[in-house]
Amino acid sequence: MRDCFEIVDKDLLGRVGRLKTRRGVVETPALAPVINPGLNVVPPREVAELGYGLLMTNAYLIKRRYGDVALEMGVHGLLGVETPIMTDSGAYQLMEYGEVEVKPLEIVEYQVKLGSDIGVILDIPTRHGVSRETVAREVEETIRRAREALEVDRGDMLLVGPVQGGVYLDIVARAARELAKLDYDIYAVGGPVQLMENYNYRELVRLVMTAKMNLPPGKPLHLFGAGNPHMLALAVAMGVDLFDSASYALYARDGRYMTPHGVYRLEDLGDLPCECPICSKLSVDELREMPYQERVYRLALHNLYVLRAELRRIRNAIREGSLWELLELRARSHPSLLQALREYERYVAFIERHHPVARGVVSGLFFYDEVSRGRPEVYRHLHRLRERYTPPPADALLLALETEVKPFSRFGWIAELAKAVAGDALLRERVHVVVASAAYGVVPLELDSTYPLSQYESAIDMDEPRAAAALASDVAWFVRGLGRYRLAVVVYEARHEAAAVEIVKRLRRAGLRAFLRPFTSVGDTLAFLKLVLALSQPHT
Amino acid sequence: MRDCFEIVDKDLLGRVGRLKTRRGVVETPALAPVINPGLNVVPPREVAELGYGLLMTNAYLIKRRYGDVALEMGVHGLLGVETPIMTDSGAYQLMEYGEVEVKPLEIVEYQVKLGSDIGVILDIPTRHGVSRETVAREVEETIRRAREALEVDRGDMLLVGPVQGGVYLDIVARAARELAKLDYDIYAVGGPVQLMENYNYRELVRLVMTAKMNLPPGKPLHLFGAGNPHMLALAVAMGVDLFDSASYALYARDGRYMTPHGVYRLEDLGDLPCECPICSKLSVDELREMPYQERVYRLALHNLYVLRAELRRIRNAIREGSLWELLELRARSHPSLLQALREYERYVAFIERHHPVARGVVSGLFFYDEVSRGRPEVYRHLHRLRERYTPPPADALLLALETEVKPFSRFGWIAELAKAVAGDALLRERVHVVVASAAYGVVPLELDSTYPLSQYESAIDMDEPRAAAALASDVAWFVRGLGRYRLAVVVYEARHEAAAVEIVKRLRRAGLRAFLRPFTSVGDTLAFLKLVLALSQPHT
Repeated sequence: MRDCFEIVDKDLLGRVGRLKTRRGVVETPALAPVINPGLNVVPPREVAELGYGLLMTNAYLIKRRYGDVALEMGVHGLLGVETPIMTDSGAYQLMEYGEVEVKPLEIVEYQVKLGSDIGVILDIPTRHGVSRETVAREVEETIRRAREALEVDRGDMLLVGPVQGGVYLDIVARAARELAKLDYDIYAVGGPVQLMENYNYRELVRLVMTAKMNLPPGKPLHLFGAGNPHMLALAVAMGVDLFDSASYALYARDGRYMTPHGVYRLEDLGDLPCECPICSKLSVDELREMPYQERVYRLALHNLYVLRAELRRIRNAIREGSLWELLELRARSHPSLLQALREYERYVAFIERHHPVARGVVSGLFFYDEVSRGRPEVYRHLHRLRERYTPPPADALLLALETEVKPFSRFGWIAELAKAVAGDALLRERVHVVVASAAYGVVPLELDSTYPLSQYESAIDMDEPRAAAALASDVAWFVRGLGRYRLAVVVYEARHEAAAVEIVKRLRRAGLRAFLRPFTSVGDTLAFLKLVLALSQPHT
Repeated sequence: MRDCFEIVDKDLLGRVGRLKTRRGVVETPALAPVINPGLNVVPPREVAELGYGLLMTNAYLIKRRYGDVALEMGVHGLLGVETPIMTDSGAYQLMEYGEVEVKPLEIVEYQVKLGSDIGVILDIPTRHGVSRETVAREVEETIRRAREALEVDRGDMLLVGPVQGGVYLDIVARAARELAKLDYDIYAVGGPVQLMENYNYRELVRLVMTAKMNLPPGKPLHLFGAGNPHMLALAVAMGVDLFDSASYALYARDGRYMTPHGVYRLEDLGDLPCECPICSKLSVDELREMPYQERVYRLALHNLYVLRAELRRIRNAIREGSLWELLELRARSHPSLLQALREYERYVAFIERHHPVARGVVSGLFFYDEVSRGRPEVYRHLHRLRERYTPPPADALLLALETEVKPFSRFGWIAELAKAVAGDALLRERVHVVVASAAYGVVPLELDSTYPLSQYESAIDMDEPRAAAALASDVAWFVRGLGRYRLAVVVYEARHEAAAVEIVKRLRRAGLRAFLRPFTSVGDTLAFLKLVLALSQPHT
């Protein structure tokens, strides 16, 4: 087993890594621009000089066009670069045209002889709209070929094993488990081109997550054919390390102009909304009036700049620990990406297991709405509270609805209230002060200075029906889990009455004697607490 | 009255315009980088060459430092550019230091003599946390000065009249109404620096919208001191045409790195997440290791590139008609911007009056959640339905819950159903087919091919309680407004039962006989419709 991949930083399932090839290290996440061996829109050397540390080309097309003559030059000689090169096997052509004129082992051997740094086996890509039986049969054949291909002496060429199965998730899972038993250097998820063309990112999430959960977590994962910048962050957050795409060139030929949040038609642009070296020096009219070839070349360069910047943004977000924030940002590029993010959240239990405990740069988390609450920090916090947390020995809960000033234990009326409770001999023994937070659900006051509870910015409107219901449900879940409180007083600013009422309702349903008290002064709350405690028998 | 401003394109309250100064036309929205006359982080000529068509500098500081000597060179000589220049009057220094050594009329006259293209009167900026009485008194003084300043012979210098008042919105409204009576070339909203520093964008929306609603709509509007790229789109959407800011330089001196969606500290960056000419050629380490002055210069240039690109993006969005989409994107830069966008939506009735009926580029609208429903198209559609729409003469409503395929009248089972109803002599006379859409509320099928109903992408989950309630409420509002339906059948895909149940509940409360029918086949729905019609007496 070769250890070709080193993980440097992690966030969600995403990682910044170093993939070691014989021609040097590739920093990941990386996108390998596809070089068409017969038609360079941008010369390979220029692509490499832009900072693309891995290129992709097609060994099958090279074999058909140049045969053994190409072996003398090698793939690096052909493209004129020393950058690491990954080669494809003809599987895409198999999908497009139904057949290829090469045998599975033959094309693996050809890639070795061609001097490819990363080769791909000739798998059978799952096409869209194909019957379950056909997909199952083709996946078995891919697994068979994957076993067989490992017998080829591949020297120090890395080899990629693609997981297929499309929308049949049980077949995807089986393919991943079978491939996981084989010693592949890199795994891949194949065949999602149609999903991506139709912006069916929700289905893509199901496919990639199913593969990911059944593959060795430490191995690099490649996603074939993903080249729209607005979805790269989501793919990385699912654990994808490598991409290949010809989109920069295909879009350019078609007059399409990439931005981080979507693709425009050049003729629709009134201005070039970009800072790249191409757009900084040209007006949109100058670009439009150029001769076709020249315009395509510049558009392709622009697209490469945009893709590179998005990859940098993603790497940076992983180092910082702000990949989730980037996902929420990108989810506003297209409604299908928001649907995909909601789908991604369904895997939070798995994501949480791999998500780091601390962020690279400690800064407050952002909460916008219920989608933000799907982030693993919330899941982790609530589960730890229930599984590992020992509260102080109190039988009464003083539940304060969150305020805008934080941390609650230091500023505002919640802090004053807590201080007064701690200073009162009777209350100190019996009352536990806890904050109801629309972001985290429940924050015991003694924990509110710990990361990630210490600092957060929230735009969640806790009085909106769904948010109030979610908050009340989290509070009830916490109370039932601990099973020690007999009564509760919910204290709140008058404007949050809707949320407070909902919480009291749920606490009562959980068997507590629960009371509402709008906050007017510390003295009032304390007097009310004492009254409530006096009226109810303490358990002894 | 001078007509110095031409509006070329509009979207929401935003506009692309041309501001005519004596030194040429300034394309708006424009941001004037502030040049400190004593300390150039980036030489003014370079700033202008980057494409900034308007510069800002401070006439009061020039007067104090150089006095009448400066008048010989003129402000263009001092800065060494022929670009239009706006000058400030010392009002900012008045706010910061409590007093200035110049008289109101004197500084207006000085600006004229200095050859400024756009001058500002010496108003009294409203400070944060000042009593209502003080603010009211200061605003009266500003209004008095504004009247007086118009008596100065300003030649062809344009003059700016600032609206003050801070958080006292009635005072802001009064100031705007009073200034509106005076013939200012440009109006401004002043004093929001503290609001912006604290990211209190919600309050900023109240301030700017109050001013905007009380100023002449055709005049250009300036917002003082706004320089964080993530809030420019929102400001433009409120009708702001001009900005001035020193942020590019101040941030650079403080090691802060702008991006369209927020500001980073340079030391926290692992990679430069940007395509600009500075970041394309440098690594983050090279930038960090530069001598201080050189680093500040490059950071400032980078910041200028980012601001310029954001302004281009905004101009492009206005031309395209996609400014709303940009607002939703930017609202994910910080929770305070989402809160501000929700605040902005409260002004939808005013916004709708100014919002164009068609988009520059016809493309589908995006709907993410309830925030997206705040866009003026939804408000306009629902109000027009109620006020201008004449439905076919039917007493029964066949309400189909929206499907994923659009337009509904052409694809899927809704189209089949409508065709079958139209082909049936009895049903044709009595049944009106209408689609319940989580985006638009109600879409009469005969209108569904008209813009903006024809095409949209929605991620709204109509079965989520709030969305279901909003949809049911829109349907009931439509039905009550027309007052002609006696019964309704709600037909839906089984997964949307929650929304269907909610709608039937509201229709019954509105006095209709309403029935639920999951869609299984066209035949089943037709048979059910006929049964329902037979059982209830037609009105004659």
